[in-house]
Amino acid sequence: MEKNILTKGRKARNASRELAKMNTLIKNAALNCIAEEIKSNRHLIKKENEKDLINGKKKGLSKAFIDRLTLTGSRIDGMIKILNDVAGLKDPVGEILNMNTLPNGLRVGQMRVPIGVIGIVFESRPNVCVEVAALTIKSGNSVILRGGSDAIHSNICITSLIRKGIKKAGLPVSTVEIIENTNRESVLHLVRMKEYVDIIIPRGGLQLIRFVEENSLIPVIRHDLGICHTYVDEFANIQMAVDICYNAKVQRPGVCNAMETLLVHKAIADKFLPEMKKAYEKAGVELRGCERTKIILPDINDATDEDWRTEYLDLILSVKIVDSVDEAIQHINRYSSAHSDGIVTDSYTNGMKFINEVDSAACFINASIRFSDGNEFGLGAEMGISNQKLHVRGPMGLKDLTAPKYIIFGNGQIKQ
Amino acid sequence: MEKNILTKGRKARNASRELAKMNTLIKNAALNCIAEEIKSNRHLIKKENEKDLINGKKKGLSKAFIDRLTLTGSRIDGMIKILNDVAGLKDPVGEILNMNTLPNGLRVGQMRVPIGVIGIVFESRPNVCVEVAALTIKSGNSVILRGGSDAIHSNICITSLIRKGIKKAGLPVSTVEIIENTNRESVLHLVRMKEYVDIIIPRGGLQLIRFVEENSLIPVIRHDLGICHTYVDEFANIQMAVDICYNAKVQRPGVCNAMETLLVHKAIADKFLPEMKKAYEKAGVELRGCERTKIILPDINDATDEDWRTEYLDLILSVKIVDSVDEAIQHINRYSSAHSDGIVTDSYTNGMKFINEVDSAACFINASIRFSDGNEFGLGAEMGISNQKLHVRGPMGLKDLTAPKYIIFGNGQIKQ
Repeated sequence: MEKNILTKGRKARNASRELAKMNTLIKNAALNCIAEEIKSNRHLIKKENEKDLINGKKKGLSKAFIDRLTLTGSRIDGMIKILNDVAGLKDPVGEILNMNTLPNGLRVGQMRVPIGVIGIVFESRPNVCVEVAALTIKSGNSVILRGGSDAIHSNICITSLIRKGIKKAGLPVSTVEIIENTNRESVLHLVRMKEYVDIIIPRGGLQLIRFVEENSLIPVIRHDLGICHTYVDEFANIQMAVDICYNAKVQRPGVCNAMETLLVHKAIADKFLPEMKKAYEKAGVELRGCERTKIILPDINDATDEDWRTEYLDLILSVKIVDSVDEAIQHINRYSSAHSDGIVTDSYTNGMKFINEVDSAACFINASIRFSDGNEFGLGAEMGISNQKLHVRGPMGLKDLTAPKYIIFGNGQIKQ
Repeated sequence: MEKNILTKGRKARNASRELAKMNTLIKNAALNCIAEEIKSNRHLIKKENEKDLINGKKKGLSKAFIDRLTLTGSRIDGMIKILNDVAGLKDPVGEILNMNTLPNGLRVGQMRVPIGVIGIVFESRPNVCVEVAALTIKSGNSVILRGGSDAIHSNICITSLIRKGIKKAGLPVSTVEIIENTNRESVLHLVRMKEYVDIIIPRGGLQLIRFVEENSLIPVIRHDLGICHTYVDEFANIQMAVDICYNAKVQRPGVCNAMETLLVHKAIADKFLPEMKKAYEKAGVELRGCERTKIILPDINDATDEDWRTEYLDLILSVKIVDSVDEAIQHINRYSSAHSDGIVTDSYTNGMKFINEVDSAACFINASIRFSDGNEFGLGAEMGISNQKLHVRGPMGLKDLTAPKYIIFGNGQIKQ
């Protein structure tokens, strides 16, 4: 197997050299050809997806899991839409930055170029294949996909359609490679072939991400947990706070930018918490409170230290009362997964303090943290949301798939 | 020992939270205080450095090594100058990027904030302590220094002066920590405490860098080899090519941006190589040629495949004749350490091809690759030169020590 994966790596590297020279028109043509292939093979995609669904049900996967796995007609439309959307985005490759003429006449600047070969390790959702292929092709990168076993038939089918489209457009077919083997060993081989792969993006559960981080010889951009907070400050407008906190928890609880912990200033807790509880009760949210919260809301469950560290991805919320904005910031900087955290306040000082001091990829004032994604921020599609600090924090869009290099134009300058 | 290093990590993390709030005036005051400490303790620095020099001579370290280790009066002046220079640079922290108002009224942008805690593992040169401290303090980061055993007395002495200066200015003293233990195990502990350290920068030999890459759980920015090329195209001006190639090899052969391999187009080799050899002979450069080079210069040594992979850091140069600019680019993309590579040509097409297709951090046309450093490129001081593609390629300056995070200003927006 190792040899097989190495071969794919080498092919992807060679393809990336070719792809880096291609202009935007050709790359867009490839995205259109892929969209055509998907359009005219809906039946095939559904047939292969059915195999995964049957296996999943046999394995007893949860209903939510099966739901994410299912490729309905409208999800296939969604894949086609993403291809069209990405074709419409501005190509970041070749953008010139910070061009300057130095005193000795040298012109020095930077130029965005593709990173090269991206390795992506992901679980479940088979639509990821299309999103990732669209973004990497448009930004001039090759990609090696390594999806999970539960969606393997769907992934292989979709990837073969992607490769057909690529070939029709005249791009090297190894621009998109898939590793069909779904055991841990295949991840290990992928994250260790540093001569062929430039970055690794793991998208999935904590276990997967830890395995990749511990074994990778290639730089990793982590897309992991969303343990996200909203802090209701003593100077919050109560109605706005209720609306924002309701939206952040209830609108779509199973995603990484949903709220998992609510922090409330002690001075507003008496008024705010009973109001908030009424709203949450209608939506069936289970509350787990700290000791002080339980004085105000005695009939809710206890929150333990474990709750502050938990991404529920469900209609469960931990609640804590704090003495000050500083205590809220401290709690967040300790327990947050550094994804998205917000404050509701009408105090300029506290709002600015929060924005400045919370060490997370996205810091919100007076808005639902559910807005934290690439589409909302105007990046178009995204590779995922980075929880780490190097290269990109938050949504990873097209630009983040490039690596500016220095370009220097001289007329014979030598160093004295 | 592990506990001791963990304690330093925790202290550095806490200090980084304080430091991130400090304004530019206070950070500059700290740099000035450090400069004062160094100025008034020259004698102490030299005394401690002398211990390292005596040990080094006992151990039989090379003359070049001892030279880099020696802190002369003018090198101490150099440290003071760097502190003053960095104090004069623009503070990148707080810079707002790409601020936009979305259709729903949300204002979304990015703000540069410090990365947090930087771990740096370096060998020999004790002046690195001051350079690194100056850049990390100015950019609002804490740093944990882990220098090599050969300079340990100098490193400890300089770091204690840095910490005195920091304290006088009112910054938390743990802004700069040093790990005094110099065995491999201490590196291992440093690169594994991911709760306290955000990035690791290894500066040193291949062995050290491999060790860090293989063991780190923290993102690594590699600063390693300079296997750099100059390609003399068939359309080069011969005199310009001789001047540039002489400068790139001879001006300072022991540094990472010196040329190690010369590529020459077959159509110009007959005229260019004998001229070039004459110049190199005067400087005592040893040439090692490919078979075709040896037909033109029969009395030089043979180059083997090993030579294309070697960073001589000495007056040795490998020479290869190629058939085309494409072959030159292929050779570079295969053997270069992706640091700095140049072309000499008067062909617009070949020059642009080279700039577009060579996959290195800095691509030069018609200038000596020796210009490849942060000072020359106008960044002020630098942490080193990155050979990898994530976050920063080439010289790593103040801006690269920040990580833009998203900031979002709303007035009650919720997601539909």
